[in-house]
Amino acid sequence: MVGIVMGSDSDLGIMKAAMETLDKFGIEYDVTIISAHRMPDVFYDWASHAEEKYDVIIAGAGGAAHLPGMAAAITPVPVIGVPIYTKSLGGVDSLYSIVQMPSGIPVATVAINGAKNAAVLAAKIISVKDPSMRQKVKDFAKGLKDGVMEKKSKIENIGWKAYLDDMNK
Amino acid sequence: MVGIVMGSDSDLGIMKAAMETLDKFGIEYDVTIISAHRMPDVFYDWASHAEEKYDVIIAGAGGAAHLPGMAAAITPVPVIGVPIYTKSLGGVDSLYSIVQMPSGIPVATVAINGAKNAAVLAAKIISVKDPSMRQKVKDFAKGLKDGVMEKKSKIENIGWKAYLDDMNK
Amino acid sequence: MVGIVMGSDSDLGIMKAAMETLDKFGIEYDVTIISAHRMPDVFYDWASHAEEKYDVIIAGAGGAAHLPGMAAAITPVPVIGVPIYTKSLGGVDSLYSIVQMPSGIPVATVAINGAKNAAVLAAKIISVKDPSMRQKVKDFAKGLKDGVMEKKSKIENIGWKAYLDDMNK
Amino acid sequence: MVGIVMGSDSDLGIMKAAMETLDKFGIEYDVTIISAHRMPDVFYDWASHAEEKYDVIIAGAGGAAHLPGMAAAITPVPVIGVPIYTKSLGGVDSLYSIVQMPSGIPVATVAINGAKNAAVLAAKIISVKDPSMRQKVKDFAKGLKDGVMEKKSKIENIGWKAYLDDMNK
Amino acid sequence: MVGIVMGSDSDLGIMKAAMETLDKFGIEYDVTIISAHRMPDVFYDWASHAEEKYDVIIAGAGGAAHLPGMAAAITPVPVIGVPIYTKSLGGVDSLYSIVQMPSGIPVATVAINGAKNAAVLAAKIISVKDPSMRQKVKDFAKGLKDGVMEKKSKIENIGWKAYLDDMNK
Amino acid sequence: MVGIVMGSDSDLGIMKAAMETLDKFGIEYDVTIISAHRMPDVFYDWASHAEEKYDVIIAGAGGAAHLPGMAAAITPVPVIGVPIYTKSLGGVDSLYSIVQMPSGIPVATVAINGAKNAAVLAAKIISVKDPSMRQKVKDFAKGLKDGVMEKKSKIENIGWKAYLDDMNK
Amino acid sequence: MVGIVMGSDSDLGIMKAAMETLDKFGIEYDVTIISAHRMPDVFYDWASHAEEKYDVIIAGAGGAAHLPGMAAAITPVPVIGVPIYTKSLGGVDSLYSIVQMPSGIPVATVAINGAKNAAVLAAKIISVKDPSMRQKVKDFAKGLKDGVMEKKSKIENIGWKAYLDDMNK
Amino acid sequence: MVGIVMGSDSDLGIMKAAMETLDKFGIEYDVTIISAHRMPDVFYDWASHAEEKYDVIIAGAGGAAHLPGMAAAITPVPVIGVPIYTKSLGGVDSLYSIVQMPSGIPVATVAINGAKNAAVLAAKIISVKDPSMRQKVKDFAKGLKDGVMEKKSKIENIGWKAYLDDMNK
Repeated sequence: MVGIVMGSDSDLGIMKAAMETLDKFGIEYDVTIISAHRMPDVFYDWASHAEEKYDVIIAGAGGAAHLPGMAAAITPVPVIGVPIYTKSLGGVDSLYSIVQMPSGIPVATVAINGAKNAAVLAAKIISVKDPSMRQKVKDFAKGLKDGVMEKKSKIENIGWKAYLDDMNK
Repeated sequence: MVGIVMGSDSDLGIMKAAMETLDKFGIEYDVTIISAHRMPDVFYDWASHAEEKYDVIIAGAGGAAHLPGMAAAITPVPVIGVPIYTKSLGGVDSLYSIVQMPSGIPVATVAINGAKNAAVLAAKIISVKDPSMRQKVKDFAKGLKDGVMEKKSKIENIGWKAYLDDMNK
Repeated sequence: MVGIVMGSDSDLGIMKAAMETLDKFGIEYDVTIISAHRMPDVFYDWASHAEEKYDVIIAGAGGAAHLPGMAAAITPVPVIGVPIYTKSLGGVDSLYSIVQMPSGIPVATVAINGAKNAAVLAAKIISVKDPSMRQKVKDFAKGLKDGVMEKKSKIENIGWKAYLDDMNK
Repeated sequence: MVGIVMGSDSDLGIMKAAMETLDKFGIEYDVTIISAHRMPDVFYDWASHAEEKYDVIIAGAGGAAHLPGMAAAITPVPVIGVPIYTKSLGGVDSLYSIVQMPSGIPVATVAINGAKNAAVLAAKIISVKDPSMRQKVKDFAKGLKDGVMEKKSKIENIGWKAYLDDMNK
Repeated sequence: MVGIVMGSDSDLGIMKAAMETLDKFGIEYDVTIISAHRMPDVFYDWASHAEEKYDVIIAGAGGAAHLPGMAAAITPVPVIGVPIYTKSLGGVDSLYSIVQMPSGIPVATVAINGAKNAAVLAAKIISVKDPSMRQKVKDFAKGLKDGVMEKKSKIENIGWKAYLDDMNK
Repeated sequence: MVGIVMGSDSDLGIMKAAMETLDKFGIEYDVTIISAHRMPDVFYDWASHAEEKYDVIIAGAGGAAHLPGMAAAITPVPVIGVPIYTKSLGGVDSLYSIVQMPSGIPVATVAINGAKNAAVLAAKIISVKDPSMRQKVKDFAKGLKDGVMEKKSKIENIGWKAYLDDMNK
Repeated sequence: MVGIVMGSDSDLGIMKAAMETLDKFGIEYDVTIISAHRMPDVFYDWASHAEEKYDVIIAGAGGAAHLPGMAAAITPVPVIGVPIYTKSLGGVDSLYSIVQMPSGIPVATVAINGAKNAAVLAAKIISVKDPSMRQKVKDFAKGLKDGVMEKKSKIENIGWKAYLDDMNK
Repeated sequence: MVGIVMGSDSDLGIMKAAMETLDKFGIEYDVTIISAHRMPDVFYDWASHAEEKYDVIIAGAGGAAHLPGMAAAITPVPVIGVPIYTKSLGGVDSLYSIVQMPSGIPVATVAINGAKNAAVLAAKIISVKDPSMRQKVKDFAKGLKDGVMEKKSKIENIGWKAYLDDMNK
């Protein structure tokens, strides 16, 4: 079970890639919107009980993105942080606020807007205890490979111009 | 009364400039070390009661510097954030984590390692309600001016070479 | 009374969030356009008399954003600086020009384009002397919380897909 | 079992914090030096068999830090990346090279030089399957808290000046 | 013979400038899509045999752009890296991941999105062994010059206003 | 007489602000397109004879913007550099390439896309020898002031809402 | 006559290169310390009368470096800005605060810590009106060239190893 | 034959790694000091004749590093650029000035201070025409591998603590 949390519904458009990817892995999850800043007591309560429900938490946040780090401070559950793109600083502010955690309180940070990868990382973490998930992770990797292999064959067969024409159709 | 808080005693060498400057203004303060990450419950409790004690809070933090922002999320007291210099990123991580707060939860951010200015800002804020502090703020500004006026006179009188020689003595 | 100043009417679209937020707090303010660079004498005169009118000043500026810092140099009134987004540097130039003030002359800096937060910070500062404003600050915080609580309930009830569908309507 | 890998023995001084922290958790690990660039075949072979030995991999690398990402590309085991500080760019190059992974291939990135946190994250990941490790993670968090609580008590009791004097002894 | 490789067909729109420019030089090339992350075994095999086919390799990649560096690690053929623009970081992530290679494994890096220049550099490298290609490189440089000379004449003759009007037509 | 030079007609849209501003000052200028990279001999010849024609040179360039610095290396005429905005790096590349000149070879650098300011700076430089230009510089400054004074009056009279409505018409 | 101004005597060690270089050109100058922030009235007065004394102003400042821009706002005399290195941000803050001036108020910005180049630029500006200074500028350039020519001859004659040995003596 | 050029003897300490590495490959080279800024005519002449002597040019430069790009503009010989570390900006200025070349004029850029890699890249380029150099490139790669293999064996045999003790001896 994965807990997905974000501080604002404006992040939902980015974070949905996490949900869709967990669906592909057949991993259960629930999704909620909790702001560490706007409802610190609710947040504190939520994080304090996370251990009872979740194997992994995925937390998306932008700007001074405290949500993932504060969650990691409260729960022993591993927390994956997704830095959300910001218009002014491109998400560098989100990235630094999430990844530069002090000693003892790690957040497993993925790329800016990397919600899909947060889900894949959750699957990899769950696969540490679950051989069937391990197999799904391998199948997923194989799927990635097959997808590019197909493109490789296509461009080598029809040439880059025809390939590009196809893309631009 | 000003509450000064930092997440680690490694910030004390920088933050002491705040204490020394508050002393000059005759502003009472207390100093504590509370980590928002390592003792979130104690931190939450402290911030929840800050209103009873403090006019202003000064919070220093480095890296993924969540302390000032989380304090500002919990207390209605104005929070001044001091981004602490970091070796790898020069304090840009601290600055972004403190200043880029989401809508509704401001932190009054000063310069990287700007602990002295945090104290001056606290004095300016207190002077909104306290005419005697307003006078002290003006006196402080006059002191700053006098200090540079003296340097101005000296360099204009003895010339830059003699001035520099004096500095290097 | 809050004095809102900006150097150019091109910043008005961003700064209006400060006015609208002060309105919500019932805080009186006036708004003017004064350029520290284009009318330094008028600016100097304005800042010299700010103390007579204002509890707090909110100054928005972009690029080599000297307005907030020069105001803070002249008046004992606390100055809140709003770094305005710039196309080329995303507002990092504005942020550094406002936040990296020299010792003795602080500007209370908020996020890039953080005009709304400047107003909230002004309310928090005024609440240091005004218990009724303190209550409004708490009510405002409660309003923020209620807003996210509603979203939390909704997404937990109808699920993220329906929620996202609603947003995209 | 955790596999710790770095591309150069020049990273060993930073990475040793991972080993020392795993020791505290009682987590077994082995340590090796393998360069993805200088011995790609050995690296490929090592990563291909990682699954047989390791629950988690910790990979430290600096500059164009490809080691963690290439490991994550080959093995289904979760990979924690430690960006190593670099003199010219402060480790921003290492951080970007590790965290900005393409879709499907996550690396769980920690702070620049965050080797200790990599170990804590490994413990948190292992605790997903191992209740005794979960308890150790909680004990570790409690230890962090106790450490700061002690500092909090001390500075509140003896005051910041005496505290700072003690530190500087 | 030049081998052009990219990790994703999303880079094809940028990389096509390399193909078009090689066409101008009459340099043969083939184009393929191989991901170092999604098909490391195929990539390894491809890079191991690159020497048999290619004088120069041009590799385009974005984000944590490992493709050029990993190719340079495996083959003795000179590898030219093209950092692809990214939305969040503008391609600085791609640039650092490609250019900051460790000692012994250089990648000849060109500008962000500099696919055309990668082709020109390939021509310059081939011209080290091929006098006819050297001549083409000189002709190409002359063509560049002639192009600007024409603009220079035009703007000096008709003036900048008429010139700009012509451009905006 | 001012010489305006740019390396590509793609900079003309930005640089035209320089021409228009020089027109306002009644300063004669000519405009040409010369690339230091694509026609180094023509560029060298042009810069070598610049002294015979120009009081000041304004050079605009983007990316690895060598044109201003190379001109400053060849001619004793003061060179004003205009860093042109670039999509990937926002013009930081242009800025660094122009402003970070080695000891002995200054370029008077203005803001990114600051073509108008380059012209004003040229007027200020010419005013060092020409009292009538000095007067025009003062008149220009007065015009700037009058422009903002008018806005100041308007917003103070009709209020920010009506002002903003007017702007958005 | 050149006016050299800095906001703090801590900049004197960097700025002295300007004085020494003006000495070489035989250009008169005076040096003063005036802070735009700490004595805005004195600064305003000084800048208002600059025109009566100076052909050119050289202003050095670090951090939120408002001194050069505020001087340029007040006086029609061309102002050369020297961004001073800062420990936390390397002088990028100083650079942005000086170079990113708004439309109409240029500062002729030189490199970070580029005090020597500020003096050379002043000489180039004065040479617009003074043929004897023009000759000195050319002589200075010739001196630069001769200095490197000598090094060129030496390294070509004795080889790089002997040359380096000489340097390290 | 490789031509190594730098603009200042202050770069010699970094650039010597290029010479030492070319020695290992048995590649002839000469070394000179030519400044594109301080002796543009000599530089132009040198670059114009580079083709007669050199297979490859290695050019090191720091700050507004125009030397590699201007060389690449004049000669058809492939130019490898080495961005030299700078104190204020860490070499990012050098990197951008070298790598962000305009269309048609590539510089093969290596890492900041990457003089050794410039030499390896030169060897790889020469190996395009010279099978014996190709063999040396492979031998060099094997040497790199052997070096790390030895470290790998050592650390696996004696453990990381003993290994680190050995390093610190």
